[in-house]
Amino acid sequence: MTNKYNNVYLNLVATVVGPVEHNGPLSKRFDRFYEDMYMHEKTFESAEVHLMRESIDILKDKIGKKDRINLFIAGDLQNQITASCYSALKLNVPFLGVYSACASNVEGLIIASNLIDTKKVKNSIVSVSSHNMVSERQFRNPTEYGGPKPMSATFTATGAASAYLSSIKSEIRIESSTIGKVCDMEQNDANNMGACMAVAAANTIYKHLKDLKRDVNYYDLILTGDLGVYGKEILKEYMQKEYNIDLSRNYNDCGVLLYDRENQKEVQAGGSGPVCSALVIYGDIVPKLRNKDLKRVLYVATGALFSPTSIFQKENILSIAHAISMEVVE
Amino acid sequence: MTNKYNNVYLNLVATVVGPVEHNGPLSKRFDRFYEDMYMHEKTFESAEVHLMRESIDILKDKIGKKDRINLFIAGDLQNQITASCYSALKLNVPFLGVYSACASNVEGLIIASNLIDTKKVKNSIVSVSSHNMVSERQFRNPTEYGGPKPMSATFTATGAASAYLSSIKSEIRIESSTIGKVCDMEQNDANNMGACMAVAAANTIYKHLKDLKRDVNYYDLILTGDLGVYGKEILKEYMQKEYNIDLSRNYNDCGVLLYDRENQKEVQAGGSGPVCSALVIYGDIVPKLRNKDLKRVLYVATGALFSPTSIFQKENILSIAHAISMEVVE
Repeated sequence: MTNKYNNVYLNLVATVVGPVEHNGPLSKRFDRFYEDMYMHEKTFESAEVHLMRESIDILKDKIGKKDRINLFIAGDLQNQITASCYSALKLNVPFLGVYSACASNVEGLIIASNLIDTKKVKNSIVSVSSHNMVSERQFRNPTEYGGPKPMSATFTATGAASAYLSSIKSEIRIESSTIGKVCDMEQNDANNMGACMAVAAANTIYKHLKDLKRDVNYYDLILTGDLGVYGKEILKEYMQKEYNIDLSRNYNDCGVLLYDRENQKEVQAGGSGPVCSALVIYGDIVPKLRNKDLKRVLYVATGALFSPTSIFQKENILSIAHAISMEVVE
Repeated sequence: MTNKYNNVYLNLVATVVGPVEHNGPLSKRFDRFYEDMYMHEKTFESAEVHLMRESIDILKDKIGKKDRINLFIAGDLQNQITASCYSALKLNVPFLGVYSACASNVEGLIIASNLIDTKKVKNSIVSVSSHNMVSERQFRNPTEYGGPKPMSATFTATGAASAYLSSIKSEIRIESSTIGKVCDMEQNDANNMGACMAVAAANTIYKHLKDLKRDVNYYDLILTGDLGVYGKEILKEYMQKEYNIDLSRNYNDCGVLLYDRENQKEVQAGGSGPVCSALVIYGDIVPKLRNKDLKRVLYVATGALFSPTSIFQKENILSIAHAISMEVVE
């Protein structure tokens, strides 16, 4: 499902990261960082709430007092999206909780864009977070278990990212969006999510280009959410073979860009988690759009849909991808 | 956040229930029922997927082949809303996952209504499900534990409910909606969620009436989602005391209506779960609106926002309520 927008602007963004993200190549692009994983809290789960709340506080400082926030949309990987719910409590504005796993940020941006474009709301904050330790103990094994992982495993990013969207004109506009379908690659290895998600990304990119009758080279850059190095190659190959679309010129993956895989061996195939793509887009791509180093970017967040219970019960890991097109306002 | 709509109709609904719901007072109002909790599947989690998929299949039969489904919005209580994700796979249309706990149905209806009203989509299916055994083992204790519960505990309903909304005129229209804020009553007893949620319901009802400058008697009926008998009384008292609004004439709670508490002792204070309110609204209220026995109904779904982890970590249980106004088309 593809929609075009006329009056939606990505006005401001805010990011807070953990130590591994701070030690990566985008280190200086984030608003704040922590050198440990607790963020002055007693539990990792509370630390994630702390991160999301802080990214919202920084964003609100940037917004200033001129605008009353109309709506808050957020998602995260904690069971029952509790990081988002506790952040919504503090922000104290109408709240919609969303879940598309690591594609949650784009789901939130799409819902907000639709409401703003049609004047149902004037503005919205959209937030996501993830925390490596929270995800490890929730989705895989207790952190203390310490088992080695295969090279195809991705590393859940620690951090939070918030964006302020409104109908008030600024440098970057949300130009269009595509809501994806759920795919099943008959995969059930939670340590190889890039493979599961690559086809969802391919389907959404293809649908987006087809619906808008665009050539792949319309975009200066197409960025997937968190396929990692192996998923990225699968996507390129699949797009070529299935749709005859060549991604070799203008495509990259946020999971690959967030870390320096040479010197940060622990990240294995790259970053993941809902905040992974948001950190790269808001930290690195938004400034490049503002400087007009890039003019048209397609942001395709990818999510692996499963729970520990579904894995134990030998269900396949499903996947989804949602896309949003961002353009420089001339 | 309150919005009015001009072109959104609740065209068709479909419901499937488990044995306890089938034995309740609304028994004959549901499309299909099961006499056991497995629904021909091997696990309770798969049984819940089965229920949601079946409610969608029944709905699609009612829709017929005339309309292509544009969008699917769904939520449930399984970790990572897997029942919704596996149902989305089968339906194979663009999918948005939502989560507001037991208020998820109204969150979905609101997002769909906004998109339809502004012509971003022509139609949408909105689904929710819950399964007593899935919730018991996920949120509270393994079912086998068998500990007695306090009278304030509610009973998670088993079933699935799907609705088809579109811009095509039919008997019932979605007239307006109010998105709620997250509340904290400083409660942390997962066996007394009615008390947590009553204030969220009160705030949303008050905001809705105030934003639209309506008297409480504008509505023939105001129905909360799943406060249960005790939460219902708390809400009535709180509305009177805090806002001087008298709910004694036209208010009831879906959690109270779904079961016969005299003869179904196991339900304790009443029903809960995202499907609870959806079953009562679609099974009982929609036919009454079609017959014009009711003309204006405010449906206020309530959700308790927490996870087992947040309870173990002694965090408070938060709550939210979203409202949707349904009117007979004259």
